[in-house]
Amino acid sequence: MENIKQRSLKQVEKNRGELTKILRELIARPSISGEEKEAQLYYAGLLEDLGCQVDVWEPKPEDMLINPNFLANRDQYSDSPDVVGVLKGSGGGQSLLLNGHMDVVPPGAIDWLQSPWSGHVEGNRLYGRGAADMKAGLAANYIAVKSLLDLGVRLKGDVLLESVVCEKTGGAGTLSAIHRGYRADGAVVPEPTGMQVCPVSMGVIWFKITVTGKAAHAATTHLGVNAITKAGLLIAAVDQMNRQMVAEKKHPLYGYHPTPFSVNLGVVTGGAIPTSVPDKVVLEGRMSFSPDETVADAKKLLEAVVHETAAADEWMREHPPEVEWFGFFLDSGSVDLSHPFVKTLCHNYETALGRAPQVVGSPFGTDAGSLIRYGHIPTVIFGPGPSSTPHKANEYVDLDSVVQTAQVLACTLLDWCGVEE
Amino acid sequence: MENIKQRSLKQVEKNRGELTKILRELIARPSISGEEKEAQLYYAGLLEDLGCQVDVWEPKPEDMLINPNFLANRDQYSDSPDVVGVLKGSGGGQSLLLNGHMDVVPPGAIDWLQSPWSGHVEGNRLYGRGAADMKAGLAANYIAVKSLLDLGVRLKGDVLLESVVCEKTGGAGTLSAIHRGYRADGAVVPEPTGMQVCPVSMGVIWFKITVTGKAAHAATTHLGVNAITKAGLLIAAVDQMNRQMVAEKKHPLYGYHPTPFSVNLGVVTGGAIPTSVPDKVVLEGRMSFSPDETVADAKKLLEAVVHETAAADEWMREHPPEVEWFGFFLDSGSVDLSHPFVKTLCHNYETALGRAPQVVGSPFGTDAGSLIRYGHIPTVIFGPGPSSTPHKANEYVDLDSVVQTAQVLACTLLDWCGVEE
Repeated sequence: MENIKQRSLKQVEKNRGELTKILRELIARPSISGEEKEAQLYYAGLLEDLGCQVDVWEPKPEDMLINPNFLANRDQYSDSPDVVGVLKGSGGGQSLLLNGHMDVVPPGAIDWLQSPWSGHVEGNRLYGRGAADMKAGLAANYIAVKSLLDLGVRLKGDVLLESVVCEKTGGAGTLSAIHRGYRADGAVVPEPTGMQVCPVSMGVIWFKITVTGKAAHAATTHLGVNAITKAGLLIAAVDQMNRQMVAEKKHPLYGYHPTPFSVNLGVVTGGAIPTSVPDKVVLEGRMSFSPDETVADAKKLLEAVVHETAAADEWMREHPPEVEWFGFFLDSGSVDLSHPFVKTLCHNYETALGRAPQVVGSPFGTDAGSLIRYGHIPTVIFGPGPSSTPHKANEYVDLDSVVQTAQVLACTLLDWCGVEE
Repeated sequence: MENIKQRSLKQVEKNRGELTKILRELIARPSISGEEKEAQLYYAGLLEDLGCQVDVWEPKPEDMLINPNFLANRDQYSDSPDVVGVLKGSGGGQSLLLNGHMDVVPPGAIDWLQSPWSGHVEGNRLYGRGAADMKAGLAANYIAVKSLLDLGVRLKGDVLLESVVCEKTGGAGTLSAIHRGYRADGAVVPEPTGMQVCPVSMGVIWFKITVTGKAAHAATTHLGVNAITKAGLLIAAVDQMNRQMVAEKKHPLYGYHPTPFSVNLGVVTGGAIPTSVPDKVVLEGRMSFSPDETVADAKKLLEAVVHETAAADEWMREHPPEVEWFGFFLDSGSVDLSHPFVKTLCHNYETALGRAPQVVGSPFGTDAGSLIRYGHIPTVIFGPGPSSTPHKANEYVDLDSVVQTAQVLACTLLDWCGVEE
């Protein structure tokens, strides 16, 4: 086995050129959430060439009902097909699911030095929207499997290469794939963790608080109730809640992170003209929560803060602000550090890279929460770096780390799925 | 004199039909601030027919420099000509300026029962945008003068019929007319005061507070500074400032008004997405101030509150919020109750209507502040009612009160300007 692992590491290194080419092809197909089709069909083609049994389908809103807290934001997915390629094993091995999302965030308001879809390479860096988050992961998944096939390896367990849509908008694609029946004995989500291994991921959910006042001309403020003033009370309360969360909510795998579980007010809008007393303010925000909590716990916490703040104010007591959960929810998830799949991945990390991985909680929400909670699949998030460039202008990925990710995955496949001699 | 006054009252009443027709013609020419030209040229035509020497000109930005605190918001006024018609007196009398603004606010978001430009009449009510604010005033000014001419009256003093632009955006038109040299020994601005006589008017100024934070991904709130949270501190401070203003700032002519001098936050905007720590929030608001204060006093008050709030916060101390005064400023103004012009107007109010007027401070900012402070003209605000419909959908004016306004003005003209026997 050690021999075949060493040959696999070399084969992945040999395939560096192809990995780079595929990553550039993926980046050249802009796949902002909701517009993933072209990139997905390209990936499906790759999987066919690999000899996979390929399934391409349009998710349906009812697929996501397996997550009872899913926050729907689309009616149809005709431009967002999911793709799964299954490479049947010879039998008797454990299956492994390699998941990745094809959707990317928009390029943003800041100009890039080169086109976000260029995929240009400078030294060890490959630039483009989605380079790190997470087309590199999808390319690494593919190259890991291809390298084994290049060597004539036949695995005992099934390998599932899954490319999903709409992770950035709450994970509809992964939920649809789970609903369609794609399960495995272990899964890796190669998000850009900067080569850290994350068997635990936080939950993330968005909320909207609508504060109601009473409109009046500003010349007669006594006839109105200023919704901005009322929103100010809630802003202070949410700030206090955030301080308390940061001070009190701890998790052993999040010791490295100063503020893993927090609440952030991201958007405020209210009123139309200085000369009117505004009757409505909307606050939008994001809350992250620990895998030790349920999303219901997390929701209750914010709802209680809003309720208590309203109860202390004469107007809001009678006109309570409304809390809605909207747009985005990725559940938390957690796999025990002693789980054989976590151990196998960590062992092969050391085999491939010659050092033990850092094992921590994921710094962001991912599809791993759904795979764990709704697919019941032990899932680890682990991928290339750096983890600091996603969502920004001039996003890039470190190519060495992409090759290393593929090497770790190749060795893990050999161990976990088993090799037909 | 009493005889000619009685005949004038009757003549105005006789001219009710013409008054209604002119008011409808004015409303049928939509004249939102910046688009007053067509309505202004129509009014200029009326003044020519009356035998006035008519001056039509485009204000220039430099005209407004006579008000050192004017908040410029336009570079050119080609669609906003000012109009003044001068009816020369026979000599030896005092002059009287009848001012009015032609511009109106937009119809607004709420649907009207009939077109805002219909000018339709139901019983005593004439409906339309600008019906009360203040095309009725412009029509009353015209009919007052025309009724005297109908009777063959020759006044000793000059009469100036002035129709200005852009009052709703800070009074550029009146400032330009003052700069052009149109002055008089007394002035009336027939804004819809509901037949109250206002020798005193509040000042109104708009402000913008820009709060700066530090952007970060919401997954790492510790790397950012939330501008919404910081804005929350300012919202609370401005609310406190407003309570103090309402409790402490009094004026003898504003006893009737619960909140004449106040500060109102009308608009808040900040951030782009729940998942980012926002780095900027803008608060916009309106502040009204007493004629006993200068605008410099008023500005200092808000600036001090913002400064003190920032000084108590570690981040804002180093990154102070910026206060700007923008978009709208109408100065306060005050004429002594014992001034002969105020007495003359009140006396003729009683002559025309058989009762003494209520004399109070104006419930809104008007061009009177500019006429008083920069034109040095004793100016009284007095006009029809109701004062509650301007700026709203289905604005209307009470036609009886428009006729009564014209009657008071006609009698005041006779007394103030003097009649050539």
